[in-house]
Amino acid sequence: MALIVHKYGGTSMGSPERIRNVAKRVAKWARAGHQMVVVPSAMSGETNRLLALAKDVQPANLDAAAMRELDMIASTGEQVSVGLLALALQAEGMPAVSYTGWQVPVKTDSSYTKARIESIDDVRVRADLAAGKVVIITGFQGIDSDGHITTLGRGGSDTSAVAVAAAMKADECLIYTDVDGVYTTDPRVVPEAQRLHTISFEEMLEMASLGSKVLQIRSVEFAGKYRVPMRVLSSFTPWDIAIEEEAASGTLITFEEDEKMEKAVVSGIAFSRDEAKFTVVGVPDTPGIAYKILGAVADANIDVDVIVQNVSHDGRTDFSFTVNRNDFQRTSDLLKSTVLPSIGAAQFIADPKICKVSIVGIGMKSHVGVASKMFRVLSEDGINIQMITTSEIKTSVVIAEKYMELAVRALHKAFDLDSPDAIRAEA
Amino acid sequence: MALIVHKYGGTSMGSPERIRNVAKRVAKWARAGHQMVVVPSAMSGETNRLLALAKDVQPANLDAAAMRELDMIASTGEQVSVGLLALALQAEGMPAVSYTGWQVPVKTDSSYTKARIESIDDVRVRADLAAGKVVIITGFQGIDSDGHITTLGRGGSDTSAVAVAAAMKADECLIYTDVDGVYTTDPRVVPEAQRLHTISFEEMLEMASLGSKVLQIRSVEFAGKYRVPMRVLSSFTPWDIAIEEEAASGTLITFEEDEKMEKAVVSGIAFSRDEAKFTVVGVPDTPGIAYKILGAVADANIDVDVIVQNVSHDGRTDFSFTVNRNDFQRTSDLLKSTVLPSIGAAQFIADPKICKVSIVGIGMKSHVGVASKMFRVLSEDGINIQMITTSEIKTSVVIAEKYMELAVRALHKAFDLDSPDAIRAEA
Repeated sequence: MALIVHKYGGTSMGSPERIRNVAKRVAKWARAGHQMVVVPSAMSGETNRLLALAKDVQPANLDAAAMRELDMIASTGEQVSVGLLALALQAEGMPAVSYTGWQVPVKTDSSYTKARIESIDDVRVRADLAAGKVVIITGFQGIDSDGHITTLGRGGSDTSAVAVAAAMKADECLIYTDVDGVYTTDPRVVPEAQRLHTISFEEMLEMASLGSKVLQIRSVEFAGKYRVPMRVLSSFTPWDIAIEEEAASGTLITFEEDEKMEKAVVSGIAFSRDEAKFTVVGVPDTPGIAYKILGAVADANIDVDVIVQNVSHDGRTDFSFTVNRNDFQRTSDLLKSTVLPSIGAAQFIADPKICKVSIVGIGMKSHVGVASKMFRVLSEDGINIQMITTSEIKTSVVIAEKYMELAVRALHKAFDLDSPDAIRAEA
Repeated sequence: MALIVHKYGGTSMGSPERIRNVAKRVAKWARAGHQMVVVPSAMSGETNRLLALAKDVQPANLDAAAMRELDMIASTGEQVSVGLLALALQAEGMPAVSYTGWQVPVKTDSSYTKARIESIDDVRVRADLAAGKVVIITGFQGIDSDGHITTLGRGGSDTSAVAVAAAMKADECLIYTDVDGVYTTDPRVVPEAQRLHTISFEEMLEMASLGSKVLQIRSVEFAGKYRVPMRVLSSFTPWDIAIEEEAASGTLITFEEDEKMEKAVVSGIAFSRDEAKFTVVGVPDTPGIAYKILGAVADANIDVDVIVQNVSHDGRTDFSFTVNRNDFQRTSDLLKSTVLPSIGAAQFIADPKICKVSIVGIGMKSHVGVASKMFRVLSEDGINIQMITTSEIKTSVVIAEKYMELAVRALHKAFDLDSPDAIRAEA
């Protein structure tokens, strides 16, 4: 008997019919003798519907008081989901109880709309599991130390599920979604993309942070920190397939670097068009200048991604960075009103039409020339590289958005990801 | 400066446009110097939408575990409303904060779907009022002693508003709705129905309990118990009318019986088609038999309304009672499975096609012959009376549902309610 956490995405919870299917699948696992905790997302479209309602009445300036209300509103989508799933399980004859984030409680900091989980109390959940109940917990949300509802930001239900799995010391966290695993890249862009049977935690972290939408990055960080075995699989297989078959499907995120994993140099191509680039021009090249620019941005709770500082000419330099495209206007306003005057820079250039393309592979640790091969492939297609950033297991480039698909397809082919043979064999 | 509670119904909160209007109206009161607490209902249609989703997945037998989940789901409608109204007030430049029932907290018993408020903590709310904020509290819901979400049942937001007003010792509780006050009867049935400028608490209690949908009965009970001055008025007047005009509109529920109130013998005609009648036939006429029948019904949390026991023949009698029509099937099942075997009765007759029509008036206390006039009017129209129940200030009859409109119109005319002169003058 194992303790298993299932997470179901919004599409999987998208209708009463689908919720009944989720209930049948969960009941199958429970009847096989497992203790089951389930974290469902809001029904697909629901969070957008709620935020659209809010948008219609909200103030122009979203201060903390307004963000608090957005969380109050958005958190209801998951609350409806857990109640519906509990009812559907009860209708299957399976005892079940649902809890909101504040009931567990899932304690978070007070960063409304992008809160971070600080702790999860497992007493209540364990008591229900011991009593033979399936426990259903809202994803995406928690409660801060003053008793306000918080949400974790888009995709936060993945994080909730992994955090619950970590707190409960679950044997495995299964992320059911509308794809059947992690692919070498997005199959909508490269039809030849291959499903990976396993991927290392480090690679998955890069893939997630670089724009692969399969898993929310913080969920992967959590899984890594607490070594939660995690599997991405499809909720659209028939609910009554053999439990062994289901348990071995999808993509397993592993913590062991075995022999097989050395085989592929590059495991996947990630990309993101949710980026915007800013270049502050003619910045005095003095110590602390990066902090003066990026500190103000961070204080406004804007995440900075790629950062590049050019070499200095005549004591002045150009300083470039990228942010999420949603933060484009706020960043522009901030640079104009606060940053430029404070550092004595004349102007900045803003470009929302860029994208980031990355190659990811744990094999890059032990292979040289991978990055230069990437640059060569892009240059052969006439694609200009605007920024470069690297880590041990990934190389990312910022390029014009219009070249994104071209770059991804060229790299996918160049690194031999188009052929099934290139993919590591199933363990 | 007064402490004022506003309650807005689902229609008043029915769209972003209407929510903005509610915000403007509340802001107007706050700017006039009043401390404002607002209790909005869920947006119209929302609770039905949520319960329809639940119905699609719920088990056939709604036990306490299932009812708990229904409350989990249904309570989200009000949570969305309070968040939206807080945002709309903030957009008006008026500081505002929303709270759910559990955040206040509003403590209730554990009768899911029809919980009763036990206490309301006003510390948090008072602190926000003192800080100059409008406080918005979810209606319809609370939290039980084990931290489960409960709801108060349909129309429970009225009760929440009055309970909050009582706990806060508010100066007045204004119930904004889609009608402009309490009428002598439902104007949809009797176009000549007149708006009452004042109504006594006792009359309002009877009107509400007898099926007048303007106010939820428990809200009137609460208002009476804690002597909360309460006013029913329209949310469809322009939001920017003079505050004095608004404060004097609608129908005031009073606690003083002044001279003017003696004028009308009958203040209104109430009716309800939400009833079903059961007659248990051939019951042994022994002590405790009423308890044996109705105790089982009460244990199943089914409210019994009118009760009549016939005179006994040969040691056996017929025992009739009415319940809410929603409980028709459950009551039938209960009588069949439990009650009949336990009392040795042979059969029961069930009739869901009945209604209850009542005349209400504090003047009945001091006038004789009011009930007999009612019976004469009904007999002149050939309407057979199946059950009769009376109190000091009302007389109710149970009749076939098909006669309902006919009976209400005849009584409204017979008791001189059709003419404006019959209505007590505005104070």
